[in-house]
Amino acid sequence: MVDLLGEKDMQEQIVSKRVLTNEVGSHIGESITVSGWLHSWREMGGLSFLVLRDAWGTLQAVAETEAELQPLREQAAGMESVISVSGRVVAMPQAPGGVELHDLSIEVISLVSEPPIVPINKPRLKAQLGTLLDHAVVTNRHPTRRAILRLGAGAMRAFRAVLNERQFTEVQTPKIVAAATESGANVFELGYFGRSAYLAQSPQLYKQIMVGVFERVYEVGPVFRAEPHDSTRHINEYVSLDVEMGFIENHFTVMALLRDVLAGIMETFNTSYAAELQLLKVQMPVVLEPIPHIHFAEAQELVYRLHGVDERQEPDLSPQSERWLGEWAQQEFHSDFLYVTGYPTRKRAFYTYPDPDRPEYSYSFDLLFRGMELVSGGQRMHRYEDYVTTLAQRGLSTEPFESYLEAFRYGLPPHGGFAIGLERLLMQLTGVPNIRLATTFPRDLTRLTP
Amino acid sequence: MVDLLGEKDMQEQIVSKRVLTNEVGSHIGESITVSGWLHSWREMGGLSFLVLRDAWGTLQAVAETEAELQPLREQAAGMESVISVSGRVVAMPQAPGGVELHDLSIEVISLVSEPPIVPINKPRLKAQLGTLLDHAVVTNRHPTRRAILRLGAGAMRAFRAVLNERQFTEVQTPKIVAAATESGANVFELGYFGRSAYLAQSPQLYKQIMVGVFERVYEVGPVFRAEPHDSTRHINEYVSLDVEMGFIENHFTVMALLRDVLAGIMETFNTSYAAELQLLKVQMPVVLEPIPHIHFAEAQELVYRLHGVDERQEPDLSPQSERWLGEWAQQEFHSDFLYVTGYPTRKRAFYTYPDPDRPEYSYSFDLLFRGMELVSGGQRMHRYEDYVTTLAQRGLSTEPFESYLEAFRYGLPPHGGFAIGLERLLMQLTGVPNIRLATTFPRDLTRLTP
Repeated sequence: MVDLLGEKDMQEQIVSKRVLTNEVGSHIGESITVSGWLHSWREMGGLSFLVLRDAWGTLQAVAETEAELQPLREQAAGMESVISVSGRVVAMPQAPGGVELHDLSIEVISLVSEPPIVPINKPRLKAQLGTLLDHAVVTNRHPTRRAILRLGAGAMRAFRAVLNERQFTEVQTPKIVAAATESGANVFELGYFGRSAYLAQSPQLYKQIMVGVFERVYEVGPVFRAEPHDSTRHINEYVSLDVEMGFIENHFTVMALLRDVLAGIMETFNTSYAAELQLLKVQMPVVLEPIPHIHFAEAQELVYRLHGVDERQEPDLSPQSERWLGEWAQQEFHSDFLYVTGYPTRKRAFYTYPDPDRPEYSYSFDLLFRGMELVSGGQRMHRYEDYVTTLAQRGLSTEPFESYLEAFRYGLPPHGGFAIGLERLLMQLTGVPNIRLATTFPRDLTRLTP
Repeated sequence: MVDLLGEKDMQEQIVSKRVLTNEVGSHIGESITVSGWLHSWREMGGLSFLVLRDAWGTLQAVAETEAELQPLREQAAGMESVISVSGRVVAMPQAPGGVELHDLSIEVISLVSEPPIVPINKPRLKAQLGTLLDHAVVTNRHPTRRAILRLGAGAMRAFRAVLNERQFTEVQTPKIVAAATESGANVFELGYFGRSAYLAQSPQLYKQIMVGVFERVYEVGPVFRAEPHDSTRHINEYVSLDVEMGFIENHFTVMALLRDVLAGIMETFNTSYAAELQLLKVQMPVVLEPIPHIHFAEAQELVYRLHGVDERQEPDLSPQSERWLGEWAQQEFHSDFLYVTGYPTRKRAFYTYPDPDRPEYSYSFDLLFRGMELVSGGQRMHRYEDYVTTLAQRGLSTEPFESYLEAFRYGLPPHGGFAIGLERLLMQLTGVPNIRLATTFPRDLTRLTP
């Protein structure tokens, strides 16, 4: 009735029979089987050059006879057909990857009869953005799209590695919440068993609460912003890399941690994603230790002095000022990164810790990466009374914050944190012109599929 | 204007001044500072025994004089006050952890004046479930609650490690979707810029699509089920550990992978979470290789033969039958796990691969853990035509599946996967009586806070 023996062995044998394209080089002279997608097919001088693509790369297979191609011909197999190709591995210095497959025996696994709307076997994906996104299911298979998405996976992995090493604990906090607490507008509302609920705009309040449990926490997860922006820099669902840490001295403790996180991500890219960086022609930044910083008020003075633009009464930096500051950091420190600290308290979220010496400024920061805001963070208030006072000053009711405030009533240490937008990091790093290209399946004002 | 030097060093010095409770043992004879929460305070024989708790454990600090306690007394600092305690580390075999702090100098960082509604300094948390969940912000600080949540973090970490080792790529797929494609009912509906959208019930369709990109993918993320169940086994938002893999032979390839994932999780628990397992008195399971399996039809026969209950015309196993099968696997194989394979095709999702030899059964499986379903999985269909046929047979329109079907039209290999419910795994493993206790902040029919 139950066959405990043999089955697993059989499976391993079958699976191990397949050689991945990036392993073929170590099988020269052997007969092997590769499986993947029919990426391209070129006829030249009586020979047929097939390129097979799997998740790890491509392999050229050369057919010298019509008989070898028969399985493809008789079914009229088109590009993207899933096939298995057996053959002999031959060293061939002029072939891509230095090896080829000869003496082919081909099997069609999944037949494709019509070509994809956007060809994905050219070096560059050429299509209108809308077409490209409409067919992301297939265009994401293109090597350049794959490379960006893989960098995303690498960033998440490196992010977690740096924090695990520092004894952070991963948390998963609720995405359906009772009230739109963080900022009244721009939340998605949903029906929840006969009442209204909202999608979390960030894990901010929960990660602070969890400082009371684990002191050091992080979360990688979706956040939802109902912002009606139609821009190249906004999407309505994105991946947030969130960190919160207790027992900090001030926001500089958080900035030092963020510096290490970014350095870890870049190091992971350099060591494990060299092929992706090369394909995407990424200019890798150097992450200085420490990253240079400038106070908000001094940044405004600097912009005024260098560029004659007076924004010293403004509560925020304009995008143009951010670009100028990015240039300045590059010239002054050869740094792609610049911290701007001390943003005006009234422009930051209610939980922001005011500078004790000049409370109109706060212990907050933005990290500019090549002149664009990449990360926001700072120290948060940790005393219950400060929250009660601040909420009242801002005209906010304490009622929707009842559970949040309970964490402070029962003791939280000085703490702070930050959030990195994964897609914005990838966009700024790779230079893609639209953030929609830095995610698998973007969500925007009009786009809900695929 | 910019101070590049010194700041970071200053930070490191300040942070390093704090010793974590689990590091105190290596500082015997030294003067150190620990920081954390005032966990308990007991007076005995003229001495005061304070216990300080941080995220890593507890430390006993002994005050011999009233002067040492003065900072606590004068502010009437209660339990859960955040404090720093400096003192001399003394080896004390009879103290918990073998060390104590003497000659105390105490500083109150965040004052707590009222005791928590549920005391969290007793070995067991004693409160009604509702009270415990209402105040999860604080009750999650209890060592037993913390231990369960930490096992959750460990499971996620081990899950990813096993899959990274096998060259899987992590993906993050959209949680806001255009249509309720997977099962018509039980989805949360939300307003999306003037139209309706839905919360994803699972990443199923997207992870299959991504097999076309990376072949082997996984995702750790929230899933949303609007099931109106009020049971000890259901919550409406949970964490799903999802896997999908291309170029499989059949569902047994997937079952072998799932076996390795579970073995990796259990091994991580045994090696890195021994304290948590001990505190929670967890009976760790052994994960056999392979895990025994039985076909659905044979499982029904077995139940009939051993227990006289005839469910052979039923399309599913009853919870009682699952329990009996769990007992049988224990007796027959000394296994806590049992695969039931080949569930009737009509009862599984439309993408399930039918058994070619008897299409009324499918290449699907459930994994029973101690007699309860823990994981579902199987091989999926991979040919475009099969989807068109099956959707028509089931009376489903192809229109909401347009993008999904595009992935098949342009070639997907044989593939399959599974999804582990993180909270259910923790519940079954630790034996907590309610799944709400296996998550940080549960969401159910009536609960949206904290």
